[in-house]
Parts: sequence; structure tokens; C-alpha cells
Amino acid sequence: MGSFFGEKVRISVFGESHGTAMGVIIDGLPSGEEIDMNEVYVQMSRRAPGGDKTATPRKEADFPEVLSGMLNGKTTGAPLAAVIHNTNTRSSDYGNLLDSPRPGHADYTAYLKYSGFNDIRGGGHFSGRLTANIVFAGAVVRQILKRRGISIAAHIYSIGNVSDTAFDACGIDSELTDRLNKSKFALVNTECEQAMRDVVEAARLDSDSVGGIIECIIQGMPAGVGDPMFNGVENVLSAAMFGVPAVKGIEFGSGFSGTLKRGSQNNDEFYFDEKGIVRTYTNNHGGALGGITSGMPIVFRVAVKPTPSVSAEQKTVNLQTGENTTVIVKGRHDPCIVPRAVPVIEAAAAIAVINML
Amino acid sequence: MGSFFGEKVRISVFGESHGTAMGVIIDGLPSGEEIDMNEVYVQMSRRAPGGDKTATPRKEADFPEVLSGMLNGKTTGAPLAAVIHNTNTRSSDYGNLLDSPRPGHADYTAYLKYSGFNDIRGGGHFSGRLTANIVFAGAVVRQILKRRGISIAAHIYSIGNVSDTAFDACGIDSELTDRLNKSKFALVNTECEQAMRDVVEAARLDSDSVGGIIECIIQGMPAGVGDPMFNGVENVLSAAMFGVPAVKGIEFGSGFSGTLKRGSQNNDEFYFDEKGIVRTYTNNHGGALGGITSGMPIVFRVAVKPTPSVSAEQKTVNLQTGENTTVIVKGRHDPCIVPRAVPVIEAAAAIAVINML
Amino acid sequence: MGSFFGEKVRISVFGESHGTAMGVIIDGLPSGEEIDMNEVYVQMSRRAPGGDKTATPRKEADFPEVLSGMLNGKTTGAPLAAVIHNTNTRSSDYGNLLDSPRPGHADYTAYLKYSGFNDIRGGGHFSGRLTANIVFAGAVVRQILKRRGISIAAHIYSIGNVSDTAFDACGIDSELTDRLNKSKFALVNTECEQAMRDVVEAARLDSDSVGGIIECIIQGMPAGVGDPMFNGVENVLSAAMFGVPAVKGIEFGSGFSGTLKRGSQNNDEFYFDEKGIVRTYTNNHGGALGGITSGMPIVFRVAVKPTPSVSAEQKTVNLQTGENTTVIVKGRHDPCIVPRAVPVIEAAAAIAVINML
Amino acid sequence: MGSFFGEKVRISVFGESHGTAMGVIIDGLPSGEEIDMNEVYVQMSRRAPGGDKTATPRKEADFPEVLSGMLNGKTTGAPLAAVIHNTNTRSSDYGNLLDSPRPGHADYTAYLKYSGFNDIRGGGHFSGRLTANIVFAGAVVRQILKRRGISIAAHIYSIGNVSDTAFDACGIDSELTDRLNKSKFALVNTECEQAMRDVVEAARLDSDSVGGIIECIIQGMPAGVGDPMFNGVENVLSAAMFGVPAVKGIEFGSGFSGTLKRGSQNNDEFYFDEKGIVRTYTNNHGGALGGITSGMPIVFRVAVKPTPSVSAEQKTVNLQTGENTTVIVKGRHDPCIVPRAVPVIEAAAAIAVINML
Repeated sequence: MGSFFGEKVRISVFGESHGTAMGVIIDGLPSGEEIDMNEVYVQMSRRAPGGDKTATPRKEADFPEVLSGMLNGKTTGAPLAAVIHNTNTRSSDYGNLLDSPRPGHADYTAYLKYSGFNDIRGGGHFSGRLTANIVFAGAVVRQILKRRGISIAAHIYSIGNVSDTAFDACGIDSELTDRLNKSKFALVNTECEQAMRDVVEAARLDSDSVGGIIECIIQGMPAGVGDPMFNGVENVLSAAMFGVPAVKGIEFGSGFSGTLKRGSQNNDEFYFDEKGIVRTYTNNHGGALGGITSGMPIVFRVAVKPTPSVSAEQKTVNLQTGENTTVIVKGRHDPCIVPRAVPVIEAAAAIAVINML
Repeated sequence: MGSFFGEKVRISVFGESHGTAMGVIIDGLPSGEEIDMNEVYVQMSRRAPGGDKTATPRKEADFPEVLSGMLNGKTTGAPLAAVIHNTNTRSSDYGNLLDSPRPGHADYTAYLKYSGFNDIRGGGHFSGRLTANIVFAGAVVRQILKRRGISIAAHIYSIGNVSDTAFDACGIDSELTDRLNKSKFALVNTECEQAMRDVVEAARLDSDSVGGIIECIIQGMPAGVGDPMFNGVENVLSAAMFGVPAVKGIEFGSGFSGTLKRGSQNNDEFYFDEKGIVRTYTNNHGGALGGITSGMPIVFRVAVKPTPSVSAEQKTVNLQTGENTTVIVKGRHDPCIVPRAVPVIEAAAAIAVINML
Repeated sequence: MGSFFGEKVRISVFGESHGTAMGVIIDGLPSGEEIDMNEVYVQMSRRAPGGDKTATPRKEADFPEVLSGMLNGKTTGAPLAAVIHNTNTRSSDYGNLLDSPRPGHADYTAYLKYSGFNDIRGGGHFSGRLTANIVFAGAVVRQILKRRGISIAAHIYSIGNVSDTAFDACGIDSELTDRLNKSKFALVNTECEQAMRDVVEAARLDSDSVGGIIECIIQGMPAGVGDPMFNGVENVLSAAMFGVPAVKGIEFGSGFSGTLKRGSQNNDEFYFDEKGIVRTYTNNHGGALGGITSGMPIVFRVAVKPTPSVSAEQKTVNLQTGENTTVIVKGRHDPCIVPRAVPVIEAAAAIAVINML
Repeated sequence: MGSFFGEKVRISVFGESHGTAMGVIIDGLPSGEEIDMNEVYVQMSRRAPGGDKTATPRKEADFPEVLSGMLNGKTTGAPLAAVIHNTNTRSSDYGNLLDSPRPGHADYTAYLKYSGFNDIRGGGHFSGRLTANIVFAGAVVRQILKRRGISIAAHIYSIGNVSDTAFDACGIDSELTDRLNKSKFALVNTECEQAMRDVVEAARLDSDSVGGIIECIIQGMPAGVGDPMFNGVENVLSAAMFGVPAVKGIEFGSGFSGTLKRGSQNNDEFYFDEKGIVRTYTNNHGGALGGITSGMPIVFRVAVKPTPSVSAEQKTVNLQTGENTTVIVKGRHDPCIVPRAVPVIEAAAAIAVINML
């Protein structure tokens, strides 16, 4: 059991890649919140495959149907449930995957856990497709957070060895936030785009894939939020982030590079700003000290591993015969999911944040 | 609320640095488990300040008193509770901290959250001293895990820019595990010790501090453990790790550096070993795919920020007067907590692991 | 937030009486479990309104559609989600309820909690109709429990002042279990049926309603299950039972009447039966001592209040005008939900039980 | 695992009857709350054995020592921990209990669950003595609730077949509340006391015991609190109440007797009182509709079974030899715990209530 998150606003996700439908329940939303479904669709289209080239997702069917929890465009306070019906449930081409797990995928571990009864088609419940539900839930939650002055923005920090300009950890302006929140290839410095696309294209031509890093900033969180020890800002956010497939690392503020600094450099000195608000000159702490928000932006980066779907022949095992063998993963693969993962990270952050308020 | 962890075996920590006592309840342990208190003491002495130079902690008083949950050296199944009485509750020298929070510490955020009613002395509930309770709980749990074939070892991966040899991610032998589990300066390659100590000593002479990275390996976990999405191996371990003060990042397997690899390089190919067990040739996935254990070792690294306790004058605010001011943190500070944090990381890992079984 | 239950197998319910659809996610089921949907339908038809007279529910549409978690008739281990589409979403006749809450219903308290944004139609999320989801989930879970030797049966203990024969608390045979599990008017002594129906009919003729008591027995639970203090058998079962609308009391074993006994009478003496199994001669403890199962059947009774939907004019308030007023609840009402609540109680018991194993 | 309660304010209890010490952690209290320890002692003395005759408990040692979470008489926001040291740890007289479980006690079920490793002396973790921790925690919490206008009072509703006057379910005055909150034999109508004592004395002379019913009223709860379905007022309160040993039933409002009423009688009609507050003329619903508070007092009754400690020879089993045998429970027993259970019920109610706010 694990496809849910949150103690205050609970997200429960269901579905398998090639099943009848997938969806999500959001339990615990405040009532009376107006939800703009167009804005939800914008976020979902940022994540949708192929969405990079066009403003609309491939198919109307990818849009979720809200089954409960909304009335006249506003939340009722009852659990908000939405389903995304599946129009593509072909099950061909998966025969040998039942026997021969794909390296880097969850085929083998799911086989172990579910004794082979899991739906292997398209990765089943482990498919990246399931992140559409996270984006849906996040898009709903973000509108509620925005009304409370909280904004979340993420960008492609790097793809392979090509890096974007990092966020100013002490804060970004609303113009940049808005631009990133609409972008399908979210960058601070848009001049990096071509170099990044070149890296992706090179991988594609090799039938290979590349990973990257996504940086996320959460602004407007009240200071003094979060709990000490095991329920702090970092604990909750990291638990949410590792719910996004392919995320293999997370760091807050100066993170791993902070270990190369002296304490005197890494400490963030306090001051009263012109409005009398306590701020820090730098933000190496990433917005939380002792697990509790300081009022500075929460800044973190997550490592997204290169998509395991590659076309090369790879060594694997045949679980039926007990022999070593090889597997070739057919089909067209997305050589880099990092751009599409940006709205997923924002959404997962939103879900974590609403659980801290 | 947040000073507890776990859904199956619940750890609840209490205490403030200069309070009467601190302690921990471990609820949900199996009954009939023999606990060797000497081994518990070994682990606690690895964490104790000053313990680096000697085999015993400074004071007998640092040893915990078990109040319940043990009978005749074995667990009864009732909650196991232990307290560590405080022999050092002097409260001098903290007067101005009430007004002027120390940069990098939780003074300011705790002040916000608790409206100034928190016990500021020694950092109160946010003190690193509280990790003694985590080490105690972990030391108990590790003995239970060991009986089930699960071992946990960590080493100082780096201090500042000096690095130890990384673990072989596909597994380390029991000799190295045992050596590390007793060491107060745990290194794979002990020849790194002097260079690391030089970095620490240089910081100390500057009244400054340094951080580092700790690498941890968990071996013997059954394959097929963990849950998809929000309750996987990485979610649970990261939520535990960020419970350790000063941890600001975590990565599993190839982690952040994996983003520089192609998918074909980062994927770990499967094979049957000579015993017919499925293994991977490499372990870039760090032991979990889709949140579920693969049977390969769980390998992760955590970033430990440089201790914020430094002697230099630092800018801060006076929360009473509303003016910008400076603070000098008095007393002797540990210029590098990384060696002492190694057993804390191992302990937190043990607590996370027993909650996944 | 509260429309979910369970730490091991989590049930999440959504929906509003007159919304698009309602449904349930069951997260944490074991994989590879064959689920007989016909048996699920039998249970759902026992609960369905009007189902008392006929073997099939009114409309095919009342049957749930399984969206995920099943493949080839077996559980996949992924969250099992089902929806029940609503064919009857007329919203007439509810206008004045927005202003004037019906006595005995949740109209007023929901209005307070959700600031009037809740879907008032048909009681919204508080409608008894939502129990169809509990019955669905319970029917799935019961098949899994049955394979582990655990059976659950309930009967109408009383309607108004007419009582059925109580269960033999030391155990009932499988024949009675099977009969009750199929019955739409479940009685130990079927000769009580007419007297009970007379009570209901009398209430109906008065446009009034009657309540009753349901007794439930859970057999085959392993001994030694449950946790002390706040997570024992009674805690978990009662938390589940009060999730069923109209339940206002619960008692285990001799319960309230046990307070009239002496300790020497109420204590259940132990003996080894012919198979060497420890049993008690009587079962006043109701199957749990110290929160832990004894191996004897778990026996409890729940009080079901008379349905608040009555046709008489009742005093109420106008929340808009702030004046005292009256309300007449239109429509046909079920004068006694007790028979239909029997399968709901069994289902809720099953959901509680699987979370204790 | 189960010796904890609460999602917002978490109570974690530890200890065994004859162990070194027992205690409780309260995690999540608001900071800055002044706690009057004298008032805590008053509550604890109401529960203490022998306390019925005198204003102070038997021994100073029964008073808890606060180890953390308090500074200068106020809560710090850190977990509040207290221990009660045990001055009476004699372990004689329990030899044969290891083999021959006492009827009505948890000896047998604990033996099963903990494979005989549990501390059997005095009932170990299942001892009624552990309720001292609940009273401590409740006494702290009640002071916080009182500041928010919430009061809790309970009385002996009945002992055996002698009944006190029931509470006016629509509210009791502060004078009665205060009197009950100090009483060691809490009655609405104190003229019942002698008849109740006669019942108890008769049982004592027979070396037997009697049970009873406790009624509790919670006033001042804000309206609109609680969650639908599985996290409502009744779910949370009942889960807390069954954490009190010997409680075998609970009913809210008209409860079981409400099943004898018609809906038109059991419904509580609404009106605006002179202050413009919505109230009901009667309170058969017991303060919650749909799991959510209506603003009327929360009223419930719990059944307390007769103490299983009786002196008569009782049939039991010898778990070592596998033979049927008998047991005589030695020592002086409390023939009726109902008066002492009153403050425990109040305390458990307080713990439940603070988790709903």
C-alpha cells in the first residue's frame, strides 16, 4: 500500500497504464474553492506526451472527468475524485516482458512483490503515465495555494551536462513564475534550450535517453510552518518527490555542494528588510531550518534519471526458464522526460505544501 | 507534531538539550528479541561528543535507562522506553540567544513556531544531542535486523573536498561492515583519515566548521519489499534521513551523477548469479526500482551541512527591538560532526528499514 | 478529511448522492486474489433500495465498474478502484433544504463545516447511498478473508421492540452463516420476520420510521491478533462501524448488559477443547481481551437509529433569514433501513478485519 | 503496535505494571500553555487506588515527573514527556500466571501475541495501572481545552443495577461540572451513593466484583468539527474509549434505547435560541450528526465490565502442560473500578477532543 500521500489533504492515486481508467481522489480540500479547469488542462498538457510541440494534448480523452467534490465550479468539501479514461489499451508487444524484465524499470520488482499478478502492460501501476493524476491533483491544489499567496515554479536545471541558470534562491519575480508555469520547456535562460534539445536529439538518434535535474522554488509559504525531526519541510517534500518515478535524489538549498563550504560561508545571516520582515542575505538553508520554514523561499533540486526505455539490446533474465537472456524494448520512447517532469514536480510540491499548512 | 517515525515500529523522541532528560519510545518491536546493551553502548559512544578519542563516552550518565519493554534481556513486545538523564543543565550563556537567533540554527524558526515559549537552551528540542535517542533506537533495531540477515554500514564519503573510496554498490563484505560498525571515524580507505582530519583541524583553527557526505549501504533486505509511489524505499528512507539535523540532501544509487549518464549506461542489466539469484551487474538504481527492493544493496548518500556553530561574529536580528544586530556564538564547538553523524545515519536507516519489512 | 479507513488495506470513498458518480479505492489488497463479481453483486443487491423484494437490484447502473486493480478476474496488487455511475441526478425538490436543515440529518452540520458549499442534494456525501461503496469494498475483502478461513455474518437483532434470537456467541455453523450472507432480511429465527415487518409497516403508515440493532459475528480470526490500548480489536471495529451512517452505539460480547453481572459471572473460563485448542465456555468478552483476539468469535451489536427521513412537519431554522420555521421532507422514505444495513455492517467489519491481520 | 493515539496531538504510552517506570509522551501540544500541576495531581488522585477515602494519593511516587516539554510552568511545544516511577515492583505471586491465564484478563491473549515474552507481572502493559498515564495526559489537555471554552464531565451512570440521574443531554451547568471534576465518586444525584456502595460492598464480601456505566458530557465544542464517514466525532471518541481497559461498549445520545423510538421522536428539532445560536430542543443525536458537531453537547455512555479480578477458583488451562486446570487469583482486588474509571474516561475524551480541533 502506498499510492496515497498526505495527512491533511490526502491524495489517493489508482490506475494501470493500459487499464480501463486511472484517477485520483483528493480528500480534505477546503470547500468553496473555485477551480479553473482550463488552468488544470494547461498543467496537464505540459505533462502530456507530445505536448511539447503543441498547446493541446493529443486527445480529449486524456482530460480527466470530475466525478465528485465539485459543484458549480467550486469544491464542495467532499472528496474530489477524477478519472482519466484510457483510449489506448492495446496489449500487444508485452508478451515477453512477463518473463524478461526490462533493466531500469520496475518490471522485476513488481513481479516479486505481486507474484506476477500485476498488470505488466506499459508498466502497469508503475507507469510514468500515472503522473497525470499527480499533475491533476497538483493543479487543483495550486489554485488554492495561489489564493493564499503561495506560488510554485520549477525549471529544467540541467539536461545531461547542459545547465540552465539557477534560480535566485532568495526569490524570483512573478513574471518568471508565470512564464515557467505555462512553459513546456521551462528554463530561466531560454537561450539554453537549443543546447539541451541537441543533447536530447543526440540521445534519440542513438535510441538512447538522457536525464537531468529539476529545480523548484516555493514562494509565499508562511514562516514557522513544519514540524521538527521527522515531519519537517524536507521530510514531507522528499517523501512526495520520491513518489515521482525516476527521481533518485533531492537536495535543499546549497545541498550537496554546501558540504564543500565552511560553516561561516554556508550560514545565512539574518536581517530585517525594509518592511520589517526577517530575511536572510543568502538562502543556503533552502527555506527551512530545523524542518520549519524561515519565510525565505523553499528551494530544492531533484535528480531525474535517464529514462530506462532505450532501444539497445540489454541483458536480463528469463524468470520462467531461469536462464540469462536479453531483451529489446520495442516502441517509440521519449528520450528525455525531464521537460515533462517539470509540472509533475511542481504538482507534487503543491501536494506536499498543502499538507504542511 | 513530528518527533516520531514509522507505521509498523513507531519511534517517538522527546527531550530538550538542557532539560531534565530526553528519551525515546519504540512501539511495535517483536517480542522475545535479545538486546545486547553493550552493543547499544558501542553505538552510542560512536556518536557521543569526545568519543572519537576514547572507547567510552564521557559520562556514565549519557547511557540510557530502559524503563519498560525489556525483561531478562529480551523485548517483551510492550513499548520499549528509555531515558537519558541530563547531568549538564547549566543555563548560562543563552540569554541573548532568546533575542538574537544564531544563523544556520533553528533558533529563529523555533521562535516563530512556538511563539518564543520553546526552550532555547542548547537548541532545545532541535539540538543535535537529541540524535542520541535515534542512535539508541537504531542500535536496538539493528540487532533485530541482523538476526534477519540485514546489515547496515556507513562511512565518511567526504569531508569538505577530501573523499574516501566509495562503497562497491554491488556489495561489501562482512569484515568491512563490522569494522565500520565499530569505528568512530568510519572510512573504507583509512589512509584518507589524516587528510580529512587536516581539513577539520584547519576549520577548527579558524573557529569555523566543515560539512561532508555520508554514504550508507543496507544489505540483506529481502527483494520485493516497499510500496509503489509514495511509500517506497526512497520515500521512507528520505523521510527518516531528513529527521537527522544538518542533513540537506539525499541521493540513491547513481543519484545526481546519474543524470549525466545515458539510459543505456545507467540501466542495470540483470543476470542469474551462480546461486540462481537475480542480481544486476551494476547498481546505479541503488537497490530499489519503482520503490521496491530488487535484492541488490540499498545504497544512498546524504549531505551533511557544515555545523552552523561557528565563532565568527555574524549578522542577525534582535527580535525584541526589531533592529539588525550581530551575534557571537560562545563556547567550544565541534568543527565537524560528520564522523559522529555516521552512526546516526545508520540508526535512522535501521528505523526506516524495520518499518518496511 | 475522513472518507478513508485502514492502515494496511486502505479504503477511500468518494461521491455525493446526486453527483456524477461515486466510488471507492481499495489500496493494499494482496495480489492474485480471484474476485467473483457475482458474489459482489449479491452483496450489493442486499443493500440496494427495493432489493428486499427481488433478487436483482433495480438497475444495472447500480453495479460498479472496476477501473483498475483487477486483471483476468484477479487482483493485481495495484489499488482496486470502482465507480458507480449515477443515473438519477435530478436536483429538484432540494431548494429549501439549503436554507432549512432537516432534523436528524447532517444537513446542518455539513452546512457549518463546508460553509454551505457542500452538495445538499440527497444528503450529498452524507447520503446512505454512499454505503454502496462500503458494501462493494467489503464484498471484495470478504472473499479474500474467506480464503483465510474468516467468515462474517450479521442479522437483524431487533427492529423496534421485536427481537430475533441472539447468536450463540461461542459460534454459529456455516449453514447459518451462508443463509444470512444471502438474505435480504437476515434473521436467525425467521419466524420473527412478520412481527418485524408489522412494526415497519406501522411506521410507514404513519409516515414515520423505526430503528433497530444489528448483531455481527466474525469467526475464524486467528488468536493473538490486535494491539493493546488504542489499536485493539474493539478500537478498530468501532472506528469502522461509526463510519456507517445512523450507527449510534456499539457493544462487544456482553456489552452494556455485562455491567449488570458480577465478575465471576462475566468472566469466561478457559478450557482445552477436544482438538487441544484453547476456548472459553462462554463468550462474554466478545472475542477480544486486552484488545487482542482470543480465538473465540468476535461478537458485537450496533444500534441503528430510526431513519431521520420522516414525513411529519418538523421544526427547524432558516439559516438565511435567521428565523425559526418548519420543514416537511418530501419524497418516499424507507421506513426502516435496518435490513439493508446488515450487509453494510458485515462489509465494514470485513474492512476492519483485514486491517488487523 | 497500538499504545498511541491521535493525529494532531499524539499520546504515546509506555510501561508495565511492575516495571521500572511507566509514562507518556504528548506530542503536538500548543506552546505557551500554562499547566497547573496541582490540578493534574487532583485528577491523578481521583484515579489512584485507595484515593476514594482521601484527598491525596497513597505515595508521592505515584506523581509523574515531567522530563521535557515544560519550562517555567508552560508548554514549550516540544513533546511533553512524563514518567511515573514504580516503587512497588515485587514480583512474587505471579509464578503460576505464566502458565495459567486468569479468565477475563489479557493474560492469555498477551501470551499468544508476545509468545510468552511479555511481562506477566500485574498484567504488564495491560494493567489498569497504565491508565494513570492517560489521566496525566488528559489532565494536561483538559486545561488547554478549558481555555478554549471546552469542558468535560463524567459521572457514574450506574453500578450494577443502581442508577444515578442521567445528565440533561442539552447541557449541565458549570457548578455541576466543577463538582464532578473534583469528585472521587462522581454522581449527579449524590443520594445514590450509599446504594451504589452497598452493591460494591456486597460484591467485595463475596470476593467478587461489579461493573457499571459511565456517562460523559463534552460542552463548548465548536459546531462544525469532525469529518464525515470514518473520522467523525463518534469514530474518534470510540477509538479512544476502547483504549481504556474494561470498556466493552459505547453509545452516543439516545444510543441503543434510540432504536426503540420512532424517527419522529428521535429526531432533534432545531431552533434559534435567544442569542441567535442554533440549538436542538432535545439531544438524542448526542452532539454529532454525520460525524460533525452540531454545537449541542456531546453525550455518550460507556459500559465498564465487572473487574475480572475475583477471588473464586476459576477454570483455566495450563499452557505448559496442555491440561485443563483451575486458578485462584490472590491478592486484594478492587471490587469496582467504575468510580476510579470516571476520570480516565474524562481524560480519554479530552485526548480525543483535542485531536478533532
